[in-house]
Amino acid sequence: MGFRAAGVFCDIKRLGTGKGSNKGPKHDLALIVSDAPASVAGVFTTNQVCAAPVKLCAARVKQGSAQAIVVNSGNANACTGRQGLRDAQAMATLTAAAVKISPRDVLVASTGRIGVLLPMANLRKGIRAASQALDATPDHAHQAATAIMTSDTRPKETAIEFQLGGQTVRLGGICKGAGMIQPGMSPTGARPALRSLHATMLCFLTTDAALSPKLLQRAMNESVAKSFNRITVDGDMSTNDTVLILANGRAGNRAFRAGSPDWKIFQAALDQVTLTLARKIVLDGEGVSRFVTVCVNGAKTSGEADAAARAVANSALVKTSWCGGDPNWGRILCALGYSSAALIEEKVDVGYSLPGSPEVLFSLKRGRPTGVSFQALCRITAGAEFDLHIHLHQGPGRALMYAADLTENYVDFNKGDVNDPSSLGG
Amino acid sequence: MGFRAAGVFCDIKRLGTGKGSNKGPKHDLALIVSDAPASVAGVFTTNQVCAAPVKLCAARVKQGSAQAIVVNSGNANACTGRQGLRDAQAMATLTAAAVKISPRDVLVASTGRIGVLLPMANLRKGIRAASQALDATPDHAHQAATAIMTSDTRPKETAIEFQLGGQTVRLGGICKGAGMIQPGMSPTGARPALRSLHATMLCFLTTDAALSPKLLQRAMNESVAKSFNRITVDGDMSTNDTVLILANGRAGNRAFRAGSPDWKIFQAALDQVTLTLARKIVLDGEGVSRFVTVCVNGAKTSGEADAAARAVANSALVKTSWCGGDPNWGRILCALGYSSAALIEEKVDVGYSLPGSPEVLFSLKRGRPTGVSFQALCRITAGAEFDLHIHLHQGPGRALMYAADLTENYVDFNKGDVNDPSSLGG
Repeated sequence: MGFRAAGVFCDIKRLGTGKGSNKGPKHDLALIVSDAPASVAGVFTTNQVCAAPVKLCAARVKQGSAQAIVVNSGNANACTGRQGLRDAQAMATLTAAAVKISPRDVLVASTGRIGVLLPMANLRKGIRAASQALDATPDHAHQAATAIMTSDTRPKETAIEFQLGGQTVRLGGICKGAGMIQPGMSPTGARPALRSLHATMLCFLTTDAALSPKLLQRAMNESVAKSFNRITVDGDMSTNDTVLILANGRAGNRAFRAGSPDWKIFQAALDQVTLTLARKIVLDGEGVSRFVTVCVNGAKTSGEADAAARAVANSALVKTSWCGGDPNWGRILCALGYSSAALIEEKVDVGYSLPGSPEVLFSLKRGRPTGVSFQALCRITAGAEFDLHIHLHQGPGRALMYAADLTENYVDFNKGDVNDPSSLGG
Repeated sequence: MGFRAAGVFCDIKRLGTGKGSNKGPKHDLALIVSDAPASVAGVFTTNQVCAAPVKLCAARVKQGSAQAIVVNSGNANACTGRQGLRDAQAMATLTAAAVKISPRDVLVASTGRIGVLLPMANLRKGIRAASQALDATPDHAHQAATAIMTSDTRPKETAIEFQLGGQTVRLGGICKGAGMIQPGMSPTGARPALRSLHATMLCFLTTDAALSPKLLQRAMNESVAKSFNRITVDGDMSTNDTVLILANGRAGNRAFRAGSPDWKIFQAALDQVTLTLARKIVLDGEGVSRFVTVCVNGAKTSGEADAAARAVANSALVKTSWCGGDPNWGRILCALGYSSAALIEEKVDVGYSLPGSPEVLFSLKRGRPTGVSFQALCRITAGAEFDLHIHLHQGPGRALMYAADLTENYVDFNKGDVNDPSSLGG
């Protein structure tokens, strides 16, 4: 499909990234290169404190074309001032020289400690090594997926093939997450209406589909709104969240327009890939033991539905009850009540189902306990994954959040170690 | 001062209130009675899902006069529909009969499990027993303070004496908190501008000062805005938060007007009592090991300062770092960045001090790390209490939050026990 990748070790994490990090040698620099200039699209954190590479990428994505992405883990290059920007630019320049393209065609991402300057000597070595290791094998993509991990326990990858405009098209991606996860990303970094918080998530997608940067950005916006912007691990929005996609056109599919059948095929494929990766981030969230899909229906507006779903998905009391496999609809109702979504207690339904099952067991209907047994509810909530169904009966507003429980392991992982200054940062 | 109190056991908690509860006999019903009708004021949760006793009290406080407060722990009488309202009214009626006053002069509060009807037979017995046990001794007030506890590890009381209008005036109170704590209370239950969330906090104040209900409500609003509405344990706003004050005039102080010197003396006394009690709630919050005062200065408006302080005080990542005694200014900056307060990274200061100390050790000045040693910062943040100083340099907006860390004990306490259905609820 005309993309090569590599993941190498250049000792950026030598100071560690906290207690949970693997302190042994591990890949920490990833490089993805397209054989030809590609259409590019991207979305970025809307945190007002955003990292140097985010600022660089947000500007470069507007060009519409790029050819390479260089990523380091272990250091976020955030809160690093002007030197941080110079370092991000240097990462692009070094990469461009190594793979013989224009620096303007290189995108940069970082994740790891906040507030520490990048060890540029190490990055220089790493970029050189990665450029020499580039290859198109799945094993090389896997190494890249490993290199962007921080507190992730496993690399996250997916790839699909589909027919588009008379050709077989490939679309794949790698991502990382784990903590500081409630992305609220927009193409320009301008703040969307949603209240959004998170830990760094990075995602890099490649496809050999042929489409314009404008169409690619539009498809990306739609997909991210339904996937990465619907997940939360801890409600904290990172300084570094980035999703980038390169589409190099090598598949040679015929051109298509927005709204056309081909457009719908591409959008569906992108939706599938981004949702698969977004779910992997929640499932591998720091300390996460349970995955809960929060479905809110019947809010006055979709904005209010979103507020209700986020209130439930980020309530410390709701999340700790999930940790124990406890349905605890009282805490859910309490969280709904303090959200900015208008509701009338006497109209609220709360139900539970196995993932994707149409059989919903309601604990509350129109504000009244249904009398369903606690044990029956627990048989659903005891599993590693369940769906929570909330209906406010106030209007047409709907929203969905992919959420996780809050466990002792999350606290233990994040409480830092004052004997290890390297745990400082995000 | 003309108030009697009692705390008795009537087995409301017989189903337990979760793993952490003391399952043995413990006081669970409190009664406070003024010897004469008193001026009354109150503030209540702004959660849209509010408990039956809150609805009852919000209406009765408007009368301006009351004489007794009956409170049970173990059952919140929330999400209990019409029967819940009837039960709250019955609590008032039973109390009125037992102490020979009008039911209209009785206020009611509840805290404990959500979604379960009150065991009225037990309450009937308890109210009778409490009315017989009423006495004016500090020991009886202490028993009442014990009776309103849920996951609190200790009763919370305070009392002061001061000179007002030529007389010695007494002002005291009891309160409870522990979890579901981020009150956002208003006199009518109408929602204030602040985004507010919480666990049930209850506070009952008595004074023999003479003042009108209108003045009392005004003083209460000012005090609550500076105390209970500035605390957060877990960011969850309860369905039951209630603060009530009775002022029976027995001290015989001369009348005073708002703004007068006497008014200022009374306001200062009430501020002192409410702040003392509010701090006790945070210090005894579920699993809390560290008390942090978050001071935000220089926001564009006080509303934005409030948003910034709450974002920091409720960030899971910031709170877990505090648990480890880790200053972690990177996470603080990240939380500020996703708050709704406008900021420019290059202008932000972050500093730490021992409680109330003027010596602030800055880790960040105008967005740049100061180079202060991690160890020096940790010497401040390792203590059981410290102050966090944030300056945005954007305007005159200031706000303060009394916050706590997030610990494994909080998660363990709240994760519920699916083998114990009694842990259901808030």
